[in-house]
Amino acid sequence: MTSLQSRLGIEFPLIQAPMAGVQGSALAVAVSNAGGLGSLPCAMLGPDEMRAELRTIASQTSKPYNVNFFCHAPPDADRAREAAWRTRLAPYYREYEIDSAAIPTGPGRRPFDETALDVLTEFRPAVVSFHFGLPSEALVAAVRALGATILASATTIDEARWLDEHGADAIIAQGYEAGGHRGLFLSDDLTTQVGTLALVPQIVSAVKKPVIAAGGIADANAIAAAMKLGAAGVQVGTAYLLCPEATTRAVHRAALKGERARHTALTNVFTGRPARGIVNRAIKELGTHQLWGASISAGCRRHGAAMGRGRKARQRRFLATVVRTK
Amino acid sequence: MTSLQSRLGIEFPLIQAPMAGVQGSALAVAVSNAGGLGSLPCAMLGPDEMRAELRTIASQTSKPYNVNFFCHAPPDADRAREAAWRTRLAPYYREYEIDSAAIPTGPGRRPFDETALDVLTEFRPAVVSFHFGLPSEALVAAVRALGATILASATTIDEARWLDEHGADAIIAQGYEAGGHRGLFLSDDLTTQVGTLALVPQIVSAVKKPVIAAGGIADANAIAAAMKLGAAGVQVGTAYLLCPEATTRAVHRAALKGERARHTALTNVFTGRPARGIVNRAIKELGTHQLWGASISAGCRRHGAAMGRGRKARQRRFLATVVRTK
Repeated sequence: MTSLQSRLGIEFPLIQAPMAGVQGSALAVAVSNAGGLGSLPCAMLGPDEMRAELRTIASQTSKPYNVNFFCHAPPDADRAREAAWRTRLAPYYREYEIDSAAIPTGPGRRPFDETALDVLTEFRPAVVSFHFGLPSEALVAAVRALGATILASATTIDEARWLDEHGADAIIAQGYEAGGHRGLFLSDDLTTQVGTLALVPQIVSAVKKPVIAAGGIADANAIAAAMKLGAAGVQVGTAYLLCPEATTRAVHRAALKGERARHTALTNVFTGRPARGIVNRAIKELGTHQLWGASISAGCRRHGAAMGRGRKARQRRFLATVVRTK
Repeated sequence: MTSLQSRLGIEFPLIQAPMAGVQGSALAVAVSNAGGLGSLPCAMLGPDEMRAELRTIASQTSKPYNVNFFCHAPPDADRAREAAWRTRLAPYYREYEIDSAAIPTGPGRRPFDETALDVLTEFRPAVVSFHFGLPSEALVAAVRALGATILASATTIDEARWLDEHGADAIIAQGYEAGGHRGLFLSDDLTTQVGTLALVPQIVSAVKKPVIAAGGIADANAIAAAMKLGAAGVQVGTAYLLCPEATTRAVHRAALKGERARHTALTNVFTGRPARGIVNRAIKELGTHQLWGASISAGCRRHGAAMGRGRKARQRRFLATVVRTK
C-alpha cells in the first residue's frame, strides 16, 4: 500500500482526473465505488449545481471522493478583444447558422472562493484538489480545517516546491502529455514543460510528500511505469472519456475513437490558457496560440468558456513566450 | 534477456546515445566494454577521422558497437541568409573579440553517403543507427549486406511504421524529453512530438520490432519504467555527458551541474533543426526558433555546425508550423 492509498483511504492508488465539461457526479461515484478516487470538477459549476452534484455523490457512495477547483484570477472583461473575437469567429457563426446575438455570456471558469467553501462545508469531502496553484492562504486553511487532504498540480520542480511550502498534502506531477489545461502557474513559459517520465522523478526528489503522476497514463503498464519512477499514485483522465458515466458528447467520442486523436497539441484558443486537445479545425484555422487573454470572447465562452488570469506581469511573460517561439 | 540483448549480443539492454561533438571513440569503447552498446557519432566526422576513430574502437574492444549517422539532405548555401546571420551575430563577435573573417566554414553535419559506406565496409560494425529517417534504399541495403543491425529514430507512430517498412531492425522511440536533435523526419510540425511515457507504448503497439525508449532516461528507475512500457531497451545520452570519457567541454560540464540545467527547451537556432538544450543566452536573445534553414551561417557553423534539409516542401511546412505557434 502506497502512502497515498493509506492517506486517502482508497483501495487503488488511482485518481480519476477531474474534467470540467465532460463529467459530473456519475463518473466520480463510479470510480470511488470501484476503489479509486472519483473527482467532481467544479470550475464550470455555480453553487447550486455544485451542491446538487455533491448531494448525488454523498448519497451514492460512502467512499472518499475528490472535489476539484481552479484557482486562477479571472480576467477583466475587454470590449475590444471581445469585438475582435466576434469578428474572427463571424464566418463560423454564419457557416453553422449560429445567432451570435443569442450566445450566452456563460459562466466561464470560476475560481475557488468563499461561496464554494460554504458548499464544501456542507459536505466535508475527503479530498480537495486545485489547478493553477492554490487559493489564498486563508482559503487553504479553511479547506484544511474541514479535514480535507489537499492536492495540487505542479508542472515544474519550482511549482512542486511552492505547493509543498504553501499547504498541498500531495503533489500531482502533470507531465507534458496530459490532456486538458496545463496547470502551470509560476511561469507562463511553455518551454519549462517536460514529459511525465522526466518530471515525476524530479519532483519525487524535490519534495517529501507523495507525488501523483499525471499525463499519458491510460493503462496498467503506464501505471506500473509511473510507480517505478517513484510516484505514490496516478491521475488518469482521458482514458475515462469514453465511459458511459462520462458526459462526453457524441462528436467528441467519435473524435477520440478516430485516427485524428493521434495528433494532439497544446493550444490556448479555447480558453486563453494552454491546454492539450485533439488537433481540430479550430486549432488549424485559428492557430494553437493567441495573445494571452484574447479568448475572453463570447464565441470562446460558448465553445469552452473563457478562463484566464488577469495579472499583467504574467500576461506580459506569456506574451514574451509566444513571441519567443516564433 | 530482451529481444534487443539477444539480437545485439549485449549484456545490458542499454545503448549509449551517439552525441556528435561531445564524444568519440573513448566513450563508445568504455560503454561497450562495460556490457552496453557504445556508439560513435559520425555526423561531424570526415572519412579520415571516422576511420581513425573506428580503428581505435576496433583495437580496444571485441564487443559490439554502434556507428551513427545523420541522413538529412544538406541545405544549399544561401548568401543572403549567411549575411543576415553574420549581421545578427556581429555584436557577439565584437563582445567576445572573435574575428568573423577567420571563422572556418566548418564541416557542418554530413549525411550518410557512399564514402561513409566505404569506411563502414572496412570495419563491419555490429550495429549502424540513423537519425532523421533512413538513407536511400540502396544505401540501406548495402549496410544490411555488411551484416549490421539497423536502428533508426521515430518521434511519432507514423515515423515508426515508416522505419519498420523501410528496413529498420529496431525502432528508437525518441520522446519529447530527449536531449539533442529531435529525429522527426516525416513532418516538421512540433505539435506532433509527445513525451516518452506516451510515445513508447504507442510505438510498441504499432510495430512488431523491438522498441528502444529514449528521452528523459538517466537512472535505473527510469530504465525500469521504460521496460514496463514495453521497451526492449533504452538509449541514454545526457547522463553520459559528465563521464571522463566524454569530450564535453568545461563550460558545458559546469552548465550541466548547475541550476540552469533544470530549464531546457527545443530550439533550432544552433543548427537549423529543432534540438533540446539548456536555455542559454543565445536562446534567450536569438529566440528558440528561427526560419527554417536560416542557420546556414558561418556563426552557427562555428558554434554548432550548420545542418538542415533542403527539401522545399518541408521547409514550407516547417515555416507554417512556426507561424502557427505564434
